[in-house]
Amino acid sequence: MTVSDGHAPTVGTDDLPVKDRLLASATELMAERGFGGVSVRDICSHAGTSINMVHHYYGSKQGMLDAIVAQFSAAVFAVPMRLIETPPRSADDFVSRMELLFASTLDAYIEHRGLMMVVVREQANPEALPAYQEALTGFLDQAKKRGFVRAEVDSEMVVGLLLDRILNQVQMAPWIKANYGTDLLSDADYRARWSLANLDVFLNGTLA
Amino acid sequence: MTVSDGHAPTVGTDDLPVKDRLLASATELMAERGFGGVSVRDICSHAGTSINMVHHYYGSKQGMLDAIVAQFSAAVFAVPMRLIETPPRSADDFVSRMELLFASTLDAYIEHRGLMMVVVREQANPEALPAYQEALTGFLDQAKKRGFVRAEVDSEMVVGLLLDRILNQVQMAPWIKANYGTDLLSDADYRARWSLANLDVFLNGTLA
Repeated sequence: MTVSDGHAPTVGTDDLPVKDRLLASATELMAERGFGGVSVRDICSHAGTSINMVHHYYGSKQGMLDAIVAQFSAAVFAVPMRLIETPPRSADDFVSRMELLFASTLDAYIEHRGLMMVVVREQANPEALPAYQEALTGFLDQAKKRGFVRAEVDSEMVVGLLLDRILNQVQMAPWIKANYGTDLLSDADYRARWSLANLDVFLNGTLA
Repeated sequence: MTVSDGHAPTVGTDDLPVKDRLLASATELMAERGFGGVSVRDICSHAGTSINMVHHYYGSKQGMLDAIVAQFSAAVFAVPMRLIETPPRSADDFVSRMELLFASTLDAYIEHRGLMMVVVREQANPEALPAYQEALTGFLDQAKKRGFVRAEVDSEMVVGLLLDRILNQVQMAPWIKANYGTDLLSDADYRARWSLANLDVFLNGTLA
């Protein structure tokens, strides 16, 4: 990942290749104004390139949105997928991996917040998401089968509880900062407290 | 509430007063294309009214967004606020009220999905939200003090766990239906199973 994706998007994108600069500009503008509120002309003007470049690299505005969704998927699903590839060996192993999954998902959402904002705003369809949800459901089911997780837990239904929590908190971070003064994006102590507290409820709610 | 707010917005809005018809059109179009992707002209044309009517009733496009946010707040915070006004009397009372809060919030988000989509999309600031979050934190703290909820639960940090879950599931409902076939918006059995499973983890995770 060499592309700045909107978190601090106007800094340091000048020396990026044209293709990446275009995507950084598209991400920033679409995150702010939505797909419908941005024209190819706006994106090119922001990136300091000609309209030909969009057609050359992405085909169309839709092609740029597809590229944003693909980049988001690569950035946020790869690490968590590896963490749940094999079934948990013990209750401690289950807890450790859920903690790592939570932390790496939160970090990825924060780092790639611009991409995420566009994906959420356009209700785009990351191709990797169904496979990820399925893998996480399977991981919980394996933990149930081995007696680490309560038999009553409906894996398929609760698999998104932590993921939704992370998504929303990162999405609303500027609003939360404006209203409550706490900043998930830059305050490491707050981020740690928030993570611990939410994991605590989830783990106490699922562990046998 | 007499205004259709975008869930089935083109049905039955013709006989609404002009003021309400305008807001229904603004909600539907902004939910689809975002605030930046819609003009006052688009909204008037959709509602079948003249541009003068927007200036008369709402002042501007921003005035229409403010009205959408206010209507959302009135629709989703009033009932839950009443449920947590007094401290829980027993563990059972705590569970009952959390169940009612979950169900009424989910129903309100589904009924007013159009308004919600606009609020989320524009990261608007419902004035009533901080007071609601504070009341819910206080309710959890009272439950802790009385021994119904574990002492380790960090009320302020986990108060949004269920709310985020509901918000996201309603927001993503069409995407979930397209990818998994389940429909939170219209399938009562699925909605009941989903609610039960998520409340089960939250209550098991918080109760003493």
